Amino acid sequence: MNRIPILRMGDILLVTIQVDMEDQTALALQDDLASRISDTSARGVLIDISALEIVDSFVGRMLASISGIARILDATTVVVGMQPAVAITLVELGLSLTGVRTALNVERGMDLLASARRGRALAR
Amino acid sequence: MNRIPILRMGDILLVTIQVDMEDQTALALQDDLASRISDTSARGVLIDISALEIVDSFVGRMLASISGIARILDATTVVVGMQPAVAITLVELGLSLTGVRTALNVERGMDLLASARRGRALAR
Repeated sequence: MNRIPILRMGDILLVTIQVDMEDQTALALQDDLASRISDTSARGVLIDISALEIVDSFVGRMLASISGIARILDATTVVVGMQPAVAITLVELGLSLTGVRTALNVERGMDLLASARRGRALAR
Repeated sequence: MNRIPILRMGDILLVTIQVDMEDQTALALQDDLASRISDTSARGVLIDISALEIVDSFVGRMLASISGIARILDATTVVVGMQPAVAITLVELGLSLTGVRTALNVERGMDLLASARRGRALAR
């Protein structure tokens, strides 16, 4: 089983998904991310899916689940790099990725995380 | 054939190698990286190999080759995240990764790129 590496950059964790997700890989990624968020006090998680040509309901659920776990651990998740064809298919399939934030690419995702953080700081 | 995604962050390109490299994947990565460096005027390339449990002479040559191509295109390459066991095996095999810069993790790699850039700016 391949483990997907999680890269730390400041208080952001970056994950690049390159392989088709299987149950075990997805579960391991959830576990690893939860541990890393907790260990590193990360405030943001960026998940790049630019290599994925298909996002089915399984992957959609996984992204929503990771996003939910991260939220409870006080980190914001942004999914970046979705291919246009994937977005079209998702909408056609009626999968709306509820609760998952998206951005066009890593840079915009980082901007989104930075502004989410500022918003949080202001709200305090 | 899987293509390995290249993520842009400012003037740095980030590549996470997760799959065992085959000839075609390695060649495609070289091509893609060369194009992206040229398109984006990137000054640094970070290659994360934390997922690799084996770095053989083929991967070693690929890293050296990417590093050489990037250098000609005026970008510095840093290989990050090497597992301790991989480093031990490389030395035992007599593979010294000549011409390839390494750093412990992505953050240190970014620091190295930043200081390389400062050095270059001073040298002008």
